[in-house]
Amino acid sequence: MQRHASGDFRRIAAFAEELTALAAPIALRYFRQKLLVESKADASPVTIADREIELAVRHKIRERFPDHGLFGEEHGLDKAEAERMWVIDPIDGTKSFISGMPTFGTLIAYLESGTPKVGVIDHPVLRERWVGQAGEVTRYNGQPCATSGKTKLSDAILYATTPDIFTGRDRDCFEALSKRVALRRFGGDCYAYALLASGHVDVVAEVDLQPYDYLSLVPVIEGAGGVITDWSGKALGLNSDGRVVAAATPALHAEVLAALKG
Amino acid sequence: MQRHASGDFRRIAAFAEELTALAAPIALRYFRQKLLVESKADASPVTIADREIELAVRHKIRERFPDHGLFGEEHGLDKAEAERMWVIDPIDGTKSFISGMPTFGTLIAYLESGTPKVGVIDHPVLRERWVGQAGEVTRYNGQPCATSGKTKLSDAILYATTPDIFTGRDRDCFEALSKRVALRRFGGDCYAYALLASGHVDVVAEVDLQPYDYLSLVPVIEGAGGVITDWSGKALGLNSDGRVVAAATPALHAEVLAALKG
Repeated sequence: MQRHASGDFRRIAAFAEELTALAAPIALRYFRQKLLVESKADASPVTIADREIELAVRHKIRERFPDHGLFGEEHGLDKAEAERMWVIDPIDGTKSFISGMPTFGTLIAYLESGTPKVGVIDHPVLRERWVGQAGEVTRYNGQPCATSGKTKLSDAILYATTPDIFTGRDRDCFEALSKRVALRRFGGDCYAYALLASGHVDVVAEVDLQPYDYLSLVPVIEGAGGVITDWSGKALGLNSDGRVVAAATPALHAEVLAALKG
Repeated sequence: MQRHASGDFRRIAAFAEELTALAAPIALRYFRQKLLVESKADASPVTIADREIELAVRHKIRERFPDHGLFGEEHGLDKAEAERMWVIDPIDGTKSFISGMPTFGTLIAYLESGTPKVGVIDHPVLRERWVGQAGEVTRYNGQPCATSGKTKLSDAILYATTPDIFTGRDRDCFEALSKRVALRRFGGDCYAYALLASGHVDVVAEVDLQPYDYLSLVPVIEGAGGVITDWSGKALGLNSDGRVVAAATPALHAEVLAALKG
Protein backbone atom coordinates (compact mmCIF):
# COMPACT_ATOMS: atom_id res chain seq x y z
CA MET A 1 0.00 0.00 0.00
CA GLN A 2 1.22 3.45 -0.92
CA ARG A 3 2.43 5.54 2.03
CA HIS A 4 1.31 9.07 2.58
CA ALA A 5 3.83 11.84 2.32
CA SER A 6 3.34 14.64 4.81
CA GLY A 7 1.60 16.63 2.08
CA ASP A 8 -1.08 13.99 1.96
CA PHE A 9 -2.02 14.64 5.57
CA ARG A 10 -2.29 18.28 4.69
CA ARG A 11 -4.82 17.38 2.02
CA ILE A 12 -6.60 15.04 4.41
CA ALA A 13 -6.75 17.83 7.00
CA ALA A 14 -8.13 20.27 4.42
CA PHE A 15 -10.77 17.71 3.50
CA ALA A 16 -11.63 17.16 7.19
CA GLU A 17 -12.14 20.91 7.49
CA GLU A 18 -14.50 20.79 4.49
CA LEU A 19 -16.47 18.14 6.36
CA THR A 20 -16.96 20.41 9.38
CA ALA A 21 -17.95 23.25 7.05
CA LEU A 22 -20.66 20.93 5.76
CA ALA A 23 -21.75 20.08 9.31
CA ALA A 24 -21.89 23.61 10.72
CA PRO A 25 -25.01 24.97 8.95
CA ILE A 26 -26.93 21.82 9.89
CA ALA A 27 -26.01 22.16 13.58
CA LEU A 28 -26.89 25.86 13.52
CA ARG A 29 -30.26 25.17 11.92
CA TYR A 30 -31.34 22.97 14.85
CA PHE A 31 -29.57 24.72 17.74
CA ARG A 32 -32.00 26.33 20.23
CA GLN A 33 -35.05 25.16 18.30
CA LYS A 34 -37.27 24.35 21.23
CA LEU A 35 -40.55 23.67 19.48
CA LEU A 36 -39.11 20.62 17.78
CA VAL A 37 -37.93 19.17 21.07
CA GLU A 38 -41.36 19.42 22.53
CA SER A 39 -43.26 18.06 19.57
CA LYS A 40 -41.17 14.97 18.84
CA ALA A 41 -40.53 12.83 21.85
CA ASP A 42 -38.36 10.35 20.00
CA ALA A 43 -36.45 12.71 17.70
CA SER A 44 -35.08 15.78 19.40
CA PRO A 45 -33.41 18.51 17.35
CA VAL A 46 -30.05 17.26 18.50
CA THR A 47 -30.89 13.76 17.30
CA ILE A 48 -32.06 15.08 13.95
CA ALA A 49 -29.01 17.31 13.66
CA ASP A 50 -26.71 14.43 14.68
CA ARG A 51 -28.15 12.13 12.02
CA GLU A 52 -28.26 14.73 9.25
CA ILE A 53 -24.69 15.81 9.87
CA GLU A 54 -23.35 12.29 10.01
CA LEU A 55 -25.18 11.30 6.81
CA ALA A 56 -23.86 14.36 4.97
CA VAL A 57 -20.32 13.76 6.22
CA ARG A 58 -20.39 10.02 5.45
CA HIS A 59 -21.73 10.71 1.97
CA LYS A 60 -18.92 13.15 1.22
CA ILE A 61 -16.24 10.78 2.55
CA ARG A 62 -17.72 7.87 0.53
CA GLU A 63 -17.66 10.00 -2.61
CA ARG A 64 -14.01 10.96 -2.13
CA PHE A 65 -12.57 7.82 -0.48
CA PRO A 66 -14.81 4.89 -1.38
CA ASP A 67 -12.51 2.34 0.28
CA HIS A 68 -11.91 4.07 3.62
CA GLY A 69 -13.54 2.84 6.81
CA LEU A 70 -16.23 4.92 8.52
CA PHE A 71 -17.26 4.97 12.16
CA GLY A 72 -19.82 7.42 13.48
CA GLU A 73 -21.87 7.85 16.62
CA GLU A 74 -25.22 7.59 14.86
CA HIS A 75 -24.73 5.25 11.92
CA GLY A 76 -22.11 2.81 13.19
CA LEU A 77 -19.18 1.10 11.49
CA ASP A 78 -18.60 0.55 7.79
CA LYS A 79 -15.53 -1.23 6.27
CA ALA A 80 -14.12 -2.08 9.68
CA GLU A 81 -11.07 -3.76 8.13
CA ALA A 82 -9.90 -0.71 6.16
CA GLU A 83 -6.44 0.57 7.07
CA ARG A 84 -7.66 4.15 6.67
CA MET A 85 -10.62 5.09 8.78
CA TRP A 86 -12.75 8.16 9.53
CA VAL A 87 -14.32 8.54 12.95
CA ILE A 88 -17.10 11.10 13.33
CA ASP A 89 -18.96 12.65 16.22
CA PRO A 90 -21.52 14.89 14.52
CA ILE A 91 -22.40 16.69 17.77
CA ASP A 92 -20.15 16.17 20.77
CA GLY A 93 -21.85 17.72 23.79
CA THR A 94 -25.47 16.88 23.07
CA LYS A 95 -26.45 17.93 26.61
CA SER A 96 -24.92 21.33 25.99
CA PHE A 97 -26.70 21.48 22.64
CA ILE A 98 -30.13 20.82 24.18
CA SER A 99 -29.59 23.43 26.87
CA GLY A 100 -28.55 26.17 24.47
CA MET A 101 -24.84 26.12 25.42
CA PRO A 102 -22.65 26.85 22.39
CA THR A 103 -19.69 24.73 23.56
CA PHE A 104 -20.79 21.63 21.64
CA GLY A 105 -18.69 20.72 18.61
CA THR A 106 -18.29 18.50 15.59
CA LEU A 107 -15.38 16.04 15.77
CA ILE A 108 -13.65 14.43 12.80
CA ALA A 109 -10.74 12.01 13.12
CA TYR A 110 -8.73 10.30 10.39
CA LEU A 111 -6.81 7.17 11.39
CA GLU A 112 -4.23 4.96 9.73
CA SER A 113 -3.78 1.47 11.14
CA GLY A 114 -5.69 2.58 14.22
CA THR A 115 -3.55 5.65 14.91
CA PRO A 116 -5.18 9.10 14.72
CA LYS A 117 -3.29 11.16 12.12
CA VAL A 118 -5.66 14.09 11.60
CA GLY A 119 -8.22 15.59 13.97
CA VAL A 120 -10.61 18.52 13.71
CA ILE A 121 -12.58 20.08 16.57
CA ASP A 122 -15.10 22.55 15.16
CA HIS A 123 -17.42 24.79 17.17
CA PRO A 124 -19.96 26.16 14.71
CA VAL A 125 -21.69 28.66 17.01
CA LEU A 126 -18.42 29.99 18.43
CA ARG A 127 -16.79 29.95 14.97
CA GLU A 128 -13.67 28.36 16.43
CA ARG A 129 -11.85 25.46 14.82
CA TRP A 130 -8.79 23.47 15.87
CA VAL A 131 -7.00 21.29 13.28
CA GLY A 132 -4.26 18.83 14.18
CA GLN A 133 -2.25 16.59 11.90
CA ALA A 134 0.66 14.24 12.57
CA GLY A 135 3.99 16.02 12.35
CA GLU A 136 2.54 19.54 12.17
CA VAL A 137 1.73 22.28 14.64
CA THR A 138 -1.97 22.46 15.52
CA ARG A 139 -3.85 25.41 14.06
CA TYR A 140 -6.57 27.40 15.79
CA ASN A 141 -8.65 29.29 13.21
CA GLY A 142 -5.72 28.99 10.83
CA GLN A 143 -3.01 30.16 13.24
CA PRO A 144 -0.50 27.96 15.08
CA CYS A 145 -1.42 27.32 18.71
CA ALA A 146 0.31 25.77 21.70
CA THR A 147 -0.56 24.48 25.15
CA SER A 148 0.27 26.55 28.23
CA GLY A 149 3.56 24.74 28.76
CA LYS A 150 2.74 24.36 32.45
CA THR A 151 4.59 21.57 34.22
CA LYS A 152 3.24 21.74 37.78
CA LEU A 153 -0.08 20.34 38.87
CA SER A 154 -0.32 22.97 41.60
CA ASP A 155 -0.50 25.68 38.88
CA ALA A 156 -2.93 23.79 36.67
CA ILE A 157 -6.55 24.45 35.67
CA LEU A 158 -8.45 21.14 35.47
CA TYR A 159 -11.65 20.59 33.49
CA ALA A 160 -14.14 17.76 33.17
CA THR A 161 -17.53 17.94 31.51
CA THR A 162 -19.42 17.00 34.68
CA PRO A 163 -18.65 15.29 37.99
CA ASP A 164 -21.59 13.01 37.28
CA ILE A 165 -19.52 10.87 34.87
CA PHE A 166 -17.34 9.62 37.72
CA THR A 167 -18.43 6.72 39.91
CA GLY A 168 -16.70 4.34 42.33
CA ARG A 169 -12.93 4.23 42.07
CA ASP A 170 -12.89 6.68 39.12
CA ARG A 171 -14.53 9.27 41.36
CA ASP A 172 -11.93 8.73 44.10
CA CYS A 173 -9.13 9.10 41.54
CA PHE A 174 -10.67 12.26 40.08
CA GLU A 175 -11.13 13.74 43.56
CA ALA A 176 -7.50 12.92 44.39
CA LEU A 177 -6.42 14.73 41.21
CA SER A 178 -8.74 17.67 41.96
CA LYS A 179 -7.11 18.22 45.34
CA ARG A 180 -3.75 18.79 43.65
CA VAL A 181 -4.73 21.45 41.07
CA ALA A 182 -5.04 25.23 41.32
CA LEU A 183 -8.62 25.26 40.00
CA ARG A 184 -11.13 22.72 38.78
CA ARG A 185 -14.09 23.55 36.63
CA PHE A 186 -16.88 21.62 34.97
CA GLY A 187 -18.52 21.98 31.58
CA GLY A 188 -17.05 22.24 28.16
CA ASP A 189 -17.29 18.85 26.43
CA CYS A 190 -14.72 18.77 23.61
CA TYR A 191 -14.24 22.52 24.04
CA ALA A 192 -12.17 21.91 27.19
CA TYR A 193 -9.64 19.88 25.17
CA ALA A 194 -9.59 22.55 22.48
CA LEU A 195 -8.90 25.22 25.11
CA LEU A 196 -6.07 23.00 26.39
CA ALA A 197 -4.55 23.02 22.89
CA SER A 198 -4.64 26.83 22.98
CA GLY A 199 -3.08 27.09 26.44
CA HIS A 200 -6.09 28.22 28.50
CA VAL A 201 -6.84 24.93 30.26
CA ASP A 202 -4.02 22.66 31.49
CA VAL A 203 -5.57 19.29 32.30
CA VAL A 204 -8.74 17.47 31.24
CA ALA A 205 -9.64 14.12 32.82
CA GLU A 206 -12.74 12.18 31.93
CA VAL A 207 -14.19 8.69 31.77
CA ASP A 208 -16.87 6.91 29.75
CA LEU A 209 -15.79 8.47 26.45
CA GLN A 210 -16.30 6.72 23.14
CA PRO A 211 -13.74 6.54 20.28
CA TYR A 212 -15.66 9.24 18.38
CA ASP A 213 -15.36 11.47 21.48
CA TYR A 214 -11.58 11.24 21.85
CA LEU A 215 -9.78 10.13 18.66
CA SER A 216 -10.00 13.54 16.96
CA LEU A 217 -8.52 15.16 20.06
CA VAL A 218 -5.22 13.26 19.76
CA PRO A 219 -3.64 15.09 16.78
CA VAL A 220 -4.96 18.43 18.06
CA ILE A 221 -3.46 18.04 21.55
CA GLU A 222 -0.21 16.43 20.41
CA GLY A 223 0.38 19.00 17.68
CA ALA A 224 0.05 21.75 20.30
CA GLY A 225 2.69 20.21 22.56
CA GLY A 226 0.34 18.36 24.89
CA VAL A 227 -0.08 14.71 25.79
CA ILE A 228 -3.31 12.70 25.67
CA THR A 229 -3.63 9.06 26.71
CA ASP A 230 -5.81 6.76 28.73
CA TRP A 231 -5.50 6.90 32.53
CA SER A 232 -2.71 4.32 32.55
CA GLY A 233 -0.65 6.35 30.06
CA LYS A 234 -1.37 4.17 27.02
CA ALA A 235 -1.96 5.67 23.58
CA LEU A 236 -5.63 6.10 22.67
CA GLY A 237 -7.07 3.87 19.97
CA LEU A 238 -10.37 2.40 18.86
CA ASN A 239 -10.34 -0.06 21.77
CA SER A 240 -9.33 2.17 24.68
CA ASP A 241 -11.38 1.89 27.87
CA GLY A 242 -12.90 5.39 27.63
CA ARG A 243 -10.75 6.93 30.39
CA VAL A 244 -9.02 9.92 28.85
CA VAL A 245 -6.51 12.35 30.29
CA ALA A 246 -4.93 15.30 28.48
CA ALA A 247 -2.23 17.57 29.84
CA ALA A 248 -0.29 20.59 28.60
CA THR A 249 3.18 18.98 28.79
CA PRO A 250 4.76 15.55 29.26
CA ALA A 251 5.91 16.55 32.77
CA LEU A 252 2.41 17.66 33.77
CA HIS A 253 0.93 14.53 32.23
CA ALA A 254 3.24 12.34 34.33
CA GLU A 255 2.19 14.21 37.46
CA VAL A 256 -1.49 13.82 36.52
CA LEU A 257 -1.16 10.06 36.00
CA ALA A 258 0.52 9.73 39.41
CA ALA A 259 -2.20 11.86 41.06
CA LEU A 260 -4.95 9.76 39.46
CA LYS A 261 -3.50 6.73 41.23
CA GLY A 262 -4.50 8.45 44.49
CA MET B 1 -39.11 62.70 44.82
CA GLN B 2 -40.31 62.51 41.23
CA ARG B 3 -41.50 59.06 40.13
CA HIS B 4 -40.34 57.44 36.94
CA ALA B 5 -42.80 56.88 34.17
CA SER B 6 -42.27 53.63 32.30
CA GLY B 7 -40.44 55.61 29.61
CA ASP B 8 -37.82 56.50 32.17
CA PHE B 9 -36.91 52.86 32.69
CA ARG B 10 -36.55 52.55 28.96
CA ARG B 11 -34.00 55.35 29.03
CA ILE B 12 -32.29 53.79 32.04
CA ALA B 13 -32.15 50.45 30.20
CA ALA B 14 -30.68 52.10 27.12
CA PHE B 15 -28.08 53.74 29.32
CA ALA B 16 -27.30 50.41 31.01
CA GLU B 17 -26.74 48.94 27.54
CA GLU B 18 -24.33 51.78 26.78
CA LEU B 19 -22.44 50.82 29.92
CA THR B 20 -21.96 47.24 28.72
CA ALA B 21 -20.88 48.54 25.32
CA LEU B 22 -18.20 50.45 27.19
CA ALA B 23 -17.18 47.32 29.12
CA ALA B 24 -17.02 44.87 26.21
CA PRO B 25 -13.85 46.08 24.44
CA ILE B 26 -12.00 46.15 27.78
CA ALA B 27 -12.98 42.56 28.56
CA LEU B 28 -12.05 41.43 25.05
CA ARG B 29 -8.66 43.11 25.29
CA TYR B 30 -7.67 41.00 28.32
CA PHE B 31 -9.46 37.74 27.51
CA ARG B 32 -7.09 34.83 26.80
CA GLN B 33 -4.01 36.99 27.39
CA LYS B 34 -1.88 34.41 29.12
CA LEU B 35 1.43 36.24 29.27
CA LEU B 36 -0.02 38.82 31.59
CA VAL B 37 -1.27 36.16 33.99
CA GLU B 38 2.16 34.68 34.25
CA SER B 39 4.07 37.91 34.65
CA LYS B 40 1.93 39.57 37.31
CA ALA B 41 1.24 37.39 40.27
CA ASP B 42 -0.92 39.96 42.04
CA ALA B 43 -2.77 41.42 39.06
CA SER B 44 -4.15 38.86 36.64
CA PRO B 45 -5.74 40.00 33.37
CA VAL B 46 -9.13 39.35 34.85
CA THR B 47 -8.33 41.56 37.81
CA ILE B 48 -7.06 44.31 35.54
CA ALA B 49 -10.07 43.94 33.27
CA ASP B 50 -12.43 43.91 36.27
CA ARG B 51 -10.97 47.12 37.66
CA GLU B 52 -10.76 48.94 34.33
CA ILE B 53 -14.33 48.06 33.41
CA GLU B 54 -15.72 49.07 36.78
CA LEU B 55 -13.84 52.38 36.75
CA ALA B 56 -15.08 53.19 33.24
CA VAL B 57 -18.65 52.25 34.12
CA ARG B 58 -18.63 54.17 37.44
CA HIS B 59 -17.20 57.22 35.73
CA LYS B 60 -19.96 57.21 33.12
CA ILE B 61 -22.70 56.73 35.72
CA ARG B 62 -21.24 59.53 37.88
CA GLU B 63 -21.18 61.83 34.88
CA ARG B 64 -24.81 61.16 34.03
CA PHE B 65 -26.34 60.59 37.48
CA PRO B 66 -24.16 62.35 40.05
CA ASP B 67 -26.53 61.61 42.93
CA HIS B 68 -27.16 57.89 42.31
CA GLY B 69 -25.61 55.22 44.52
CA LEU B 70 -22.93 52.91 43.14
CA PHE B 71 -21.97 49.43 44.26
CA GLY B 72 -19.40 47.36 42.41
CA GLU B 73 -17.42 44.20 43.01
CA GLU B 74 -14.03 45.90 42.79
CA HIS B 75 -14.51 49.42 44.08
CA GLY B 76 -17.18 49.04 46.74
CA LEU B 77 -20.10 51.24 47.75
CA ASP B 78 -20.62 54.95 47.11
CA LYS B 79 -23.67 56.98 48.26
CA ALA B 80 -25.17 54.02 50.09
CA GLU B 81 -28.21 56.07 51.13
CA ALA B 82 -29.30 57.00 47.60
CA GLU B 83 -32.76 55.79 46.60
CA ARG B 84 -31.46 55.03 43.09
CA MET B 85 -28.53 52.68 42.94
CA TRP B 86 -26.39 50.98 40.31
CA VAL B 87 -24.87 47.59 41.05
CA ILE B 88 -22.06 46.38 38.80
CA ASP B 89 -20.23 43.11 38.27
CA PRO B 90 -17.61 43.99 35.68
CA ILE B 91 -16.76 40.32 34.99
CA ASP B 92 -19.09 37.67 36.36
CA GLY B 93 -17.43 34.29 35.88
CA THR B 94 -13.81 35.17 36.53
CA LYS B 95 -12.89 31.47 36.65
CA SER B 96 -14.36 31.03 33.19
CA PHE B 97 -12.50 34.13 32.05
CA ILE B 98 -9.12 32.82 33.24
CA SER B 99 -9.68 29.46 31.57
CA GLY B 100 -10.63 30.91 28.20
CA MET B 101 -14.35 30.08 28.47
CA PRO B 102 -16.46 32.77 26.78
CA THR B 103 -19.47 32.37 29.08
CA PHE B 104 -18.39 35.14 31.47
CA GLY B 105 -20.43 38.33 31.35
CA THR B 106 -20.80 41.91 32.51
CA LEU B 107 -23.76 42.54 34.82
CA ILE B 108 -25.44 45.89 35.40
CA ALA B 109 -28.40 46.41 37.72
CA TYR B 110 -30.38 49.56 38.46
CA LEU B 111 -32.38 49.62 41.70
CA GLU B 112 -34.96 51.92 43.21
CA SER B 113 -35.50 51.69 46.96
CA GLY B 114 -33.63 48.39 46.92
CA THR B 115 -35.73 46.81 44.17
CA PRO B 116 -34.03 45.88 40.86
CA LYS B 117 -35.84 47.73 38.06
CA VAL B 118 -33.41 47.28 35.16
CA GLY B 119 -30.88 44.51 34.52
CA VAL B 120 -28.44 43.80 31.72
CA ILE B 121 -26.50 40.57 31.18
CA ASP B 122 -23.92 41.10 28.45
CA HIS B 123 -21.60 38.45 27.00
CA PRO B 124 -19.00 40.32 24.99
CA VAL B 125 -17.27 37.31 23.36
CA LEU B 126 -20.54 35.62 22.48
CA ARG B 127 -22.11 38.93 21.39
CA GLU B 128 -25.28 38.10 23.29
CA ARG B 129 -27.12 40.57 25.51
CA TRP B 130 -30.22 40.25 27.65
CA VAL B 131 -31.99 43.40 28.88
CA GLY B 132 -34.79 43.36 31.44
CA GLN B 133 -36.80 46.26 32.81
CA ALA B 134 -39.75 46.41 35.18
CA GLY B 135 -43.05 46.12 33.34
CA GLU B 136 -41.54 45.15 29.98
CA VAL B 137 -40.74 41.94 28.16
CA THR B 138 -37.05 40.99 28.35
CA ARG B 139 -35.10 41.44 25.14
CA TYR B 140 -32.38 39.13 23.84
CA ASN B 141 -30.23 40.94 21.28
CA GLY B 142 -33.09 43.34 20.76
CA GLN B 143 -35.84 40.74 20.35
CA PRO B 144 -38.43 39.73 22.96
CA CYS B 145 -37.59 36.47 24.72
CA ALA B 146 -39.42 34.12 27.08
CA THR B 147 -38.65 31.24 29.40
CA SER B 148 -39.51 27.67 28.38
CA GLY B 149 -42.84 27.81 30.20
CA LYS B 150 -42.09 24.40 31.73
CA THR B 151 -44.03 23.62 34.88
CA LYS B 152 -42.76 20.15 35.85
CA LEU B 153 -39.48 19.51 37.60
CA SER B 154 -39.26 16.09 35.96
CA ASP B 155 -38.97 17.82 32.53
CA ALA B 156 -36.53 20.48 33.70
CA ILE B 157 -32.89 21.17 32.83
CA LEU B 158 -31.04 22.36 35.96
CA TYR B 159 -27.80 24.37 35.95
CA ALA B 160 -25.35 25.51 38.60
CA THR B 161 -21.92 26.97 37.97
CA THR B 162 -20.11 24.22 39.89
CA PRO B 163 -20.99 21.62 42.54
CA ASP B 164 -18.06 22.97 44.55
CA ILE B 165 -20.11 25.96 45.78
CA PHE B 166 -22.38 23.68 47.81
CA THR B 167 -21.40 22.48 51.27
CA GLY B 168 -23.21 20.99 54.24
CA ARG B 169 -26.96 21.31 54.19
CA ASP B 170 -26.91 23.35 50.95
CA ARG B 171 -25.28 20.38 49.23
CA ASP B 172 -27.93 17.99 50.52
CA CYS B 173 -30.67 20.34 49.32
CA PHE B 174 -29.06 20.72 45.90
CA GLU B 175 -28.65 16.94 45.57
CA ALA B 176 -32.31 16.48 46.54
CA LEU B 177 -33.28 18.95 43.81
CA SER B 178 -30.93 17.29 41.29
CA LYS B 179 -32.63 13.92 41.79
CA ARG B 180 -35.95 15.40 40.65
CA VAL B 181 -34.88 17.00 37.34
CA ALA B 182 -34.50 15.58 33.83
CA LEU B 183 -30.90 16.77 33.47
CA ARG B 184 -28.41 18.67 35.56
CA ARG B 185 -25.37 20.42 34.16
CA PHE B 186 -22.58 22.54 35.53
CA GLY B 187 -20.87 25.63 34.16
CA GLY B 188 -22.24 28.81 32.81
CA ASP B 189 -22.03 31.50 35.51
CA CYS B 190 -24.54 34.26 34.66
CA TYR B 191 -24.98 32.69 31.22
CA ALA B 192 -27.12 29.92 32.74
CA TYR B 193 -29.64 32.52 33.99
CA ALA B 194 -29.58 34.23 30.61
CA LEU B 195 -30.29 30.91 28.88
CA LEU B 196 -33.18 30.44 31.31
CA ALA B 197 -34.63 33.78 30.16
CA SER B 198 -34.47 32.50 26.58
CA GLY B 199 -36.10 29.16 27.37
CA HIS B 200 -33.13 26.79 27.02
CA VAL B 201 -32.47 26.13 30.72
CA ASP B 202 -35.35 25.72 33.18
CA VAL B 203 -33.87 25.99 36.68
CA VAL B 204 -30.71 27.52 38.15
CA ALA B 205 -29.91 27.06 41.84
CA GLU B 206 -26.81 28.46 43.48
CA VAL B 207 -25.41 29.68 46.78
CA ASP B 208 -22.72 32.11 47.88
CA LEU B 209 -23.72 34.77 45.36
CA GLN B 210 -23.14 38.46 46.01
CA PRO B 211 -25.64 41.25 45.23
CA TYR B 212 -23.65 42.19 42.11
CA ASP B 213 -23.96 38.55 40.95
CA TYR B 214 -27.76 38.31 41.20
CA LEU B 215 -29.51 41.74 41.22
CA SER B 216 -29.20 42.29 37.45
CA LEU B 217 -30.72 38.85 36.84
CA VAL B 218 -34.03 39.79 38.49
CA PRO B 219 -35.54 42.07 35.79
CA VAL B 220 -34.18 39.78 33.04
CA ILE B 221 -35.76 36.62 34.45
CA GLU B 222 -39.02 38.26 35.57
CA GLY B 223 -39.49 40.06 32.24
CA ALA B 224 -39.17 36.71 30.47
CA GLY B 225 -41.92 35.08 32.57
CA GLY B 226 -39.64 33.42 35.12
CA VAL B 227 -39.30 33.69 38.88
CA ILE B 228 -36.10 34.38 40.81
CA THR B 229 -35.86 34.52 44.61
CA ASP B 230 -33.75 33.29 47.48
CA TRP B 231 -34.15 29.64 48.51
CA SER B 232 -36.97 30.49 50.90
CA GLY B 233 -38.94 32.25 48.16
CA LYS B 234 -38.19 35.81 49.31
CA ALA B 235 -37.50 38.58 46.80
CA LEU B 236 -33.81 39.26 46.20
CA GLY B 237 -32.33 42.50 47.52
CA LEU B 238 -29.06 43.97 48.63
CA ASN B 239 -29.20 41.98 51.87
CA SER B 240 -30.22 38.52 50.66
CA ASP B 241 -28.23 35.55 51.94
CA GLY B 242 -26.67 34.66 48.58
CA ARG B 243 -28.84 31.59 47.95
CA VAL B 244 -30.50 32.15 44.58
CA VAL B 245 -32.99 30.06 42.66
CA ALA B 246 -34.49 30.87 39.27
CA ALA B 247 -37.18 28.92 37.46
CA ALA B 248 -39.05 29.17 34.17
CA THR B 249 -42.55 29.55 35.68
CA PRO B 250 -44.20 30.21 39.06
CA ALA B 251 -45.40 26.58 39.17
CA LEU B 252 -41.91 25.23 38.51
CA HIS B 253 -40.44 27.66 41.03
CA ALA B 254 -42.83 26.38 43.71
CA GLU B 255 -41.81 22.81 42.93
CA VAL B 256 -38.12 23.75 43.10
CA LEU B 257 -38.52 25.43 46.50
CA ALA B 258 -40.26 22.34 47.83
CA ALA B 259 -37.55 20.06 46.40
CA LEU B 260 -34.80 22.18 47.95
CA LYS B 261 -36.33 21.47 51.35
CA GLY B 262 -35.39 17.83 50.75
